[in-house]
Amino acid sequence: MTDTTDTPVTVLGLGLMGQALAGAFLTAGHPTTVWNRTTSKANDLVADGASLAPSPGAAIAASPLTIVCLTDYVAVRDLLGGDDVDLAGATVINLTSGDSAQAREAARWAEQRGARYLDGAIMAVPPAIGTADAVILHSGPRPDFEAHEATLAALGTVTYLGPDHGLASLYDVAGLAMMWSVLNAWLQGTALLRTAGVDAVTYAPFARQLAAGVADWLPGYAEQIDAGSYPAEVSALETDVRAMTHLIEESEAVGVNAELPRLIKAMADRAIAAGRGREQYPVLIEEFSRPRNGPSRA
Amino acid sequence: MTDTTDTPVTVLGLGLMGQALAGAFLTAGHPTTVWNRTTSKANDLVADGASLAPSPGAAIAASPLTIVCLTDYVAVRDLLGGDDVDLAGATVINLTSGDSAQAREAARWAEQRGARYLDGAIMAVPPAIGTADAVILHSGPRPDFEAHEATLAALGTVTYLGPDHGLASLYDVAGLAMMWSVLNAWLQGTALLRTAGVDAVTYAPFARQLAAGVADWLPGYAEQIDAGSYPAEVSALETDVRAMTHLIEESEAVGVNAELPRLIKAMADRAIAAGRGREQYPVLIEEFSRPRNGPSRA
Ligand SMILES: NC(=O)c1ccc[n+]([C@@H]2O[C@H](COP(=O)([O-])OP(=O)(O)OC[C@H]3O[C@@H](n4cnc5c(N)ncnc54)[C@H](OP(=O)(O)O)[C@@H]3O)[C@@H](O)[C@H]2O)c1
Ligand SMILES: NC(=O)c1ccc[n+]([C@@H]2O[C@H](COP(=O)([O-])OP(=O)(O)OC[C@H]3O[C@@H](n4cnc5c(N)ncnc54)[C@H](OP(=O)(O)O)[C@@H]3O)[C@@H](O)[C@H]2O)c1
Repeated sequence: MTDTTDTPVTVLGLGLMGQALAGAFLTAGHPTTVWNRTTSKANDLVADGASLAPSPGAAIAASPLTIVCLTDYVAVRDLLGGDDVDLAGATVINLTSGDSAQAREAARWAEQRGARYLDGAIMAVPPAIGTADAVILHSGPRPDFEAHEATLAALGTVTYLGPDHGLASLYDVAGLAMMWSVLNAWLQGTALLRTAGVDAVTYAPFARQLAAGVADWLPGYAEQIDAGSYPAEVSALETDVRAMTHLIEESEAVGVNAELPRLIKAMADRAIAAGRGREQYPVLIEEFSRPRNGPSRA
Repeated sequence: MTDTTDTPVTVLGLGLMGQALAGAFLTAGHPTTVWNRTTSKANDLVADGASLAPSPGAAIAASPLTIVCLTDYVAVRDLLGGDDVDLAGATVINLTSGDSAQAREAARWAEQRGARYLDGAIMAVPPAIGTADAVILHSGPRPDFEAHEATLAALGTVTYLGPDHGLASLYDVAGLAMMWSVLNAWLQGTALLRTAGVDAVTYAPFARQLAAGVADWLPGYAEQIDAGSYPAEVSALETDVRAMTHLIEESEAVGVNAELPRLIKAMADRAIAAGRGREQYPVLIEEFSRPRNGPSRA
């Protein structure tokens, strides 16, 4: 079975994101059924050609594929567990944000009720939905993704990660960690350079090139992690730590925030204390894989 | 005056890095004079055609350009302040690691003694010297850089940053902050994904693409900083913080280190407490520009 633009689709939840999702399906030509707890949020979509269903159960029954996008997983369970809802034979893709355990639990729950279930994560803001910039991650049974991939393509760049329903949430937060880390490192550098009168716009291309350059190392470094062996081919952690001290001292000397530099060094110091000083940076995976909430819990 | 490969050059300090620098000048065909406190470290270079000077003063007198690469700035001052050294008319490029204040102070000191002085920073490991991968930053008077740019090109990708002697050190540590931040965010993501059995090699391309994608935002975000105005065109800090909570909760739930996620949220929380919740991420420059050693000092 391959979807076409004739394939009907249902969207449950018409918050900022749900409205963007339903709008993108309409734009792509899909007969689109919508439902929202607060009915008035459907008005614009109905004006654009969507069908407003009288109940969640009727909405799900109207299409082979139902997209759910609510505040959280508690709301999803409340909605899909309603008396009028029959999930048998339905395919549900839940794009609500949550964690991997919630995704796996929701999958079990929905599958027990006869649904095919995929969990997803949206790495985009509502205005980007419907463009290639909107990355939408999916995990769960591959055949269920492939059956609806053509319909989902109306939303943006859709990606399938694997059968474990928890993967979409995990990739999502991992990606967010990368996003904020690049931004924070850039802000740290911008703050440092501004003390010497350098504009943010002057510094940004340097930061951009460096981030992209370091990103290119990751596939090679990843091989060290999978092999569990970290020979210091390029640099040893002990050497890196001397430069980390420079970063901290410079930040403090020019009077900018030194928390990020200190956290960077604290992680490396712990690996050195664990006897890893002659090994290469990716050996820090052992520190990152260890539960620790750290001093910043306060 | 433009250097050619005939231009003599002197290298003071033949540690791991100094040997690589002198070796690259020899390879490029420059008559190269060397000196090191421990003379034996010059042996291989002399075998390759370098001239060993009997003293630092003789080494400096032998070439229009002298590169200094020692452990730290204290060693540089000891060496260049020696009785036999006459800096008048010499051009000194100091590639020793240090901070911006040390660089500016060294420049004043050397200029008082009649030298032309540039400060530099090497963003590379010794084996990369002599290849385009070796980025070497320079700051100080532009004419002095331009006079020797052709000679310096033997070392790698040489860059001029501006007349403030502190810039090379500042860009250097800013770049290091970016490097470790990309690596740490990748390790955080790798640790998260490994809890679901995903190999580091499987996850790395996703992290790489994301880092490069976010890097592309920096020039645009920089304009907000220079304008001092942070309208939430894409997303408001308040919205970001909800996703930061997901990152922390997911990290804790699967049992990986949550220190980096917590620091990310702590910075944003402070900006929100300062009334910036409806503004966009780059408003955090105000937090990064504030001296704070943070809870991780312990
Ligand atoms: N907005 C973004 O930038 C963005 C980006 C990526 C991911 N996401 C994720 O997408 C999801 C939705 O976000 P949003 O921005 O659309 O949020 P929103 O504007 O606050 O909308 C929330 C939606 O959930 C519904 N809802 C909440 N509790 C419910 C319940 N108990 N029963 C039935 N419906 C309920 C709301 O219905 P009412 O209209 O009746 O209140 C509304 O349709 C969230 O998980 C969010 O993390 C959002
Ligand atoms: N290696 C790298 O990966 C790397 C990367 C970027 C930047 N750097 C920077 O490059 C500089 C040199 O690093 P390196 O790796 O070459 O270090 P190294 O191998 O430890 O060499 C240090 C050099 O400094 C000399 N020295 C130290 N104190 C001295 C003094 N008081 N008087 C005269 N000479 C003195 C040493 O002479 P002796 O041989 O007599 O001890 C030696 O030549 C450092 O600032 C480092 O941060 C290094």
